[in-house]
Amino acid sequence: MNITPASLTSGSLRSTLPGSAYTDPATFDSECARILEANWFCAVASTDVGTTGSYRTVTVGRESVLITRTRAGEARAFFNVCRHRGARLCTEDSGTVARTFRCPYHAWSYDLDGKLASAPHLPQMGDIDRTEYGLRTIAVREWLGYVWVCLDADPPSFADTVMASVASRLGDGAAVERYDVGSLALGKRITYDVAANWKLVVENFMECYHCSTIHPELTGVLPEFAKGWAAQYYVGHGAQMGASVQGFTVDGTAGLGRLPDIDDEQDRRYFAVTVAPQVFLNLVPDHVIVHRMFPMGPGRTVIECDWLVHPDVLASGTDISGSVELFDRVNRQDFDACERCQSGMGSRVYADGGVLVPTEHHIEAFHTWVRTSLGEIVGVPAEEGAA
Amino acid sequence: MNITPASLTSGSLRSTLPGSAYTDPATFDSECARILEANWFCAVASTDVGTTGSYRTVTVGRESVLITRTRAGEARAFFNVCRHRGARLCTEDSGTVARTFRCPYHAWSYDLDGKLASAPHLPQMGDIDRTEYGLRTIAVREWLGYVWVCLDADPPSFADTVMASVASRLGDGAAVERYDVGSLALGKRITYDVAANWKLVVENFMECYHCSTIHPELTGVLPEFAKGWAAQYYVGHGAQMGASVQGFTVDGTAGLGRLPDIDDEQDRRYFAVTVAPQVFLNLVPDHVIVHRMFPMGPGRTVIECDWLVHPDVLASGTDISGSVELFDRVNRQDFDACERCQSGMGSRVYADGGVLVPTEHHIEAFHTWVRTSLGEIVGVPAEEGAA
Amino acid sequence: MNITPASLTSGSLRSTLPGSAYTDPATFDSECARILEANWFCAVASTDVGTTGSYRTVTVGRESVLITRTRAGEARAFFNVCRHRGARLCTEDSGTVARTFRCPYHAWSYDLDGKLASAPHLPQMGDIDRTEYGLRTIAVREWLGYVWVCLDADPPSFADTVMASVASRLGDGAAVERYDVGSLALGKRITYDVAANWKLVVENFMECYHCSTIHPELTGVLPEFAKGWAAQYYVGHGAQMGASVQGFTVDGTAGLGRLPDIDDEQDRRYFAVTVAPQVFLNLVPDHVIVHRMFPMGPGRTVIECDWLVHPDVLASGTDISGSVELFDRVNRQDFDACERCQSGMGSRVYADGGVLVPTEHHIEAFHTWVRTSLGEIVGVPAEEGAA
Repeated sequence: MNITPASLTSGSLRSTLPGSAYTDPATFDSECARILEANWFCAVASTDVGTTGSYRTVTVGRESVLITRTRAGEARAFFNVCRHRGARLCTEDSGTVARTFRCPYHAWSYDLDGKLASAPHLPQMGDIDRTEYGLRTIAVREWLGYVWVCLDADPPSFADTVMASVASRLGDGAAVERYDVGSLALGKRITYDVAANWKLVVENFMECYHCSTIHPELTGVLPEFAKGWAAQYYVGHGAQMGASVQGFTVDGTAGLGRLPDIDDEQDRRYFAVTVAPQVFLNLVPDHVIVHRMFPMGPGRTVIECDWLVHPDVLASGTDISGSVELFDRVNRQDFDACERCQSGMGSRVYADGGVLVPTEHHIEAFHTWVRTSLGEIVGVPAEEGAA
Repeated sequence: MNITPASLTSGSLRSTLPGSAYTDPATFDSECARILEANWFCAVASTDVGTTGSYRTVTVGRESVLITRTRAGEARAFFNVCRHRGARLCTEDSGTVARTFRCPYHAWSYDLDGKLASAPHLPQMGDIDRTEYGLRTIAVREWLGYVWVCLDADPPSFADTVMASVASRLGDGAAVERYDVGSLALGKRITYDVAANWKLVVENFMECYHCSTIHPELTGVLPEFAKGWAAQYYVGHGAQMGASVQGFTVDGTAGLGRLPDIDDEQDRRYFAVTVAPQVFLNLVPDHVIVHRMFPMGPGRTVIECDWLVHPDVLASGTDISGSVELFDRVNRQDFDACERCQSGMGSRVYADGGVLVPTEHHIEAFHTWVRTSLGEIVGVPAEEGAA
Repeated sequence: MNITPASLTSGSLRSTLPGSAYTDPATFDSECARILEANWFCAVASTDVGTTGSYRTVTVGRESVLITRTRAGEARAFFNVCRHRGARLCTEDSGTVARTFRCPYHAWSYDLDGKLASAPHLPQMGDIDRTEYGLRTIAVREWLGYVWVCLDADPPSFADTVMASVASRLGDGAAVERYDVGSLALGKRITYDVAANWKLVVENFMECYHCSTIHPELTGVLPEFAKGWAAQYYVGHGAQMGASVQGFTVDGTAGLGRLPDIDDEQDRRYFAVTVAPQVFLNLVPDHVIVHRMFPMGPGRTVIECDWLVHPDVLASGTDISGSVELFDRVNRQDFDACERCQSGMGSRVYADGGVLVPTEHHIEAFHTWVRTSLGEIVGVPAEEGAA
């Protein structure tokens, strides 16, 4: 393996974003408008809204989004705000309704397609267009077993952004399909509330320069990570398990059965994909781990992490705790590091940012994407608008 | 009863204020300056400062106000700030002083009229005018058993604003006098701390379109409220108790004795009056309920609610809990709804506000009053100044 | 003693700073840049970093500062931020490292002089200058047993500011030396977290007009303080203990043994010195009390207060609680008063500030220093810059 990229010849260090990019409320607002609410956002698992009328609410940028499933089996997403007087329609994280979402304030009720179904005195208000006063709709796509939403009225191509992002990382659009993620079952979900900017979390997932310092269990299973090069540094690269390692578990003992459709190139390897802005996907032979990040403010990010296993594993009652514990530890180690970083972002010492060493140089591409998305050099006031 | 106002012919829906009017700190500041600190504000019950030297402190707009009673029996109000070095004079909600308010920092002491009575070394500082360095005085009026204050140096006419507001709602200036509110005794006080903008609370009190949805006990006692038309929609209208209802209690059982001076038109009826910006008055045959709202910030309002009963009721030890529980439940139902609304105000879906149905059209007058008071279209930057 | 200064003839009252100077976040930011980060700041006791590799972290203005001691015995101070990716290097208040500060994120390690000692892959990154990527250094001085730091790249003269300030208050540069503060031992440290602007705390320490009101124990020991004139009002003045007082203790009973080198003029007297912006020094015959204020925001100040005693006292296990309790009570009385003041600063009544009586007139000099430091009349927007 050649771990010395060409760029090393022209200098070991590259610049990061300035510290203010991680603390400034105005920058966060711009990011909400131009990134989080403008791109496809992985919102909930398809199984979270698996049955007619089941729903979940999540925060996307500055908005509460309500996601449900129609009688026809299609996922739907709406702004979680009553069109009458603005009340939050659903305040619970999840639940199920029979036929309609009924606002608990004045009983305006919307069907699962968002149409205004009924309201007190509605028959006497014949001039009201029930579609015009339906819930505001949000674009939806289902892929890899998740419901993705886009709050923009004119969403970018899903294939050219999300799918292309996965394919270009794995070097092959078909690679991810062999894991058949959409058919897997939710083995475990853990939610983390992290006092750090979402970009620090993304950057952390992208590099492995920190692996030897903070991830003893992970480098135990994937010894090449001790060298600092992340799987994400190379197109198509999957990190190989150590010779004596039996499975992707906290102690390297045997994991679960190999997923049925992966090929031999995928066996005994760990692949990682970041789908900007907020998804981190891990593919191992016997399970899949999906992180969805929910940026809540300049200095706070909530992460929902799902461990997905073959339905037979779940049905058989197999103990998956050894698999879960590995990445749960990795997550906690990572998020502690992110919080430690966040607290330094406001220092004058970091006003111009820090540096990326060679094993981190690919983070530059993420920074460029952020800067371009904001239509500016970060830190310079953006023009009003977007979203 | 004709429940179809003329306006229905020209469209069922009217616009509300934009969502930002309920969340923007700058708008709240303008409201403090031009509404809360510029109008008569119902501060405390006269009996809260019933004896010489008894005092209460309340928040009016951005100021802490100290209210007390002089030896001559007059209510007085002051800015609760020592003129020497700015210390808060009284930090307790209520209390009693013998003769003076003594600042606990440097012992500057003010008599009950606010005059500087003594201070260490004051005799040696002969050039100090004790009136000039007295507490800053605030205009005071007592009416309906409450102390009303106005922080403006040039208060509006009390008769043309507060009294006219009550008279125009009841259709008759004498109507409220027959309840002799000032002679009643405080049966119960409950304080609510609500995570909602004060205008949402006012709007909630003004309309009854929500009554059938959230107020089963109230519509049980006042069946016409199930139709959605608030007593406040009509000049002079009092909602009639149901035929089988014995009293204005949580379960419709008998309440207290009819107040001695009300007339037969007032018996078995519920009248409600909103005195903008922050009073909600309920008149029922056997007691009176007074809500005073204290806006604490764009998203927080404290409400003190008093149940006032005939002094004989209090003296006799009669159980008033059935009467109190009815409106306490109504309050909790209402304030839950207001909090649910508050959380939707920031959505892009509500950027231009929501809609008022016919039974809510009269709220438009409140919105116009707010806009006019702010000297602007809400949401457009105001000129500096006011108050 | 002449307690009537000339200024009394021209009017008893002088103006303070406006209330906004104590609440405005932008003013606090300017103060950080132009006062707290621009002047010598008393950070930690020399004994807090008494051994090689021992360290403390403190907040100076808007920065976390890391202070340690080299193998050669010199104190060093650094911005507590890793030069790689901005992580906070030390998150603990205090601790000890063997040879290096190692960032827990990517293991960049700095020696006790701040130089980059090692990092993963550093040998392969030959173009990195280990000094250029060392910790950012902060100027350091040790005096009176404390480590003083200055975050400005071009610190003012320590002699002309800190030392001159002490000498001019005591009327003699040699006076403080006789207490040999640097040789004393830490008898007790108490940390106070106060909800008040740092300037209110400074002002409080400077005047004694409040002593008769809130400090019964202090005026019991120093009866002249009941007259309101602070020791700080007069150059060289030390307040005399009462005739029947045996020691500077909470009840006037005997204290500790007289410090060996003080002269007879210093015996039975209390001297107080404010070193702007954040030190308050008390000298009594048998111990020394040092307050260091850490302004944390417009409305919050943390104060570390040290009681320093002769090493023999500490070694002998003598009970010093009577000495500690006196000023601990004084501190609590003072800080309560400061918090009470803070809550009045936002009132319109205090928009133009309050007044200083004759015994407080010397506070004007502090206010002038603040105004001059900010390069402006406080309350008027400052030009960008400084620090």
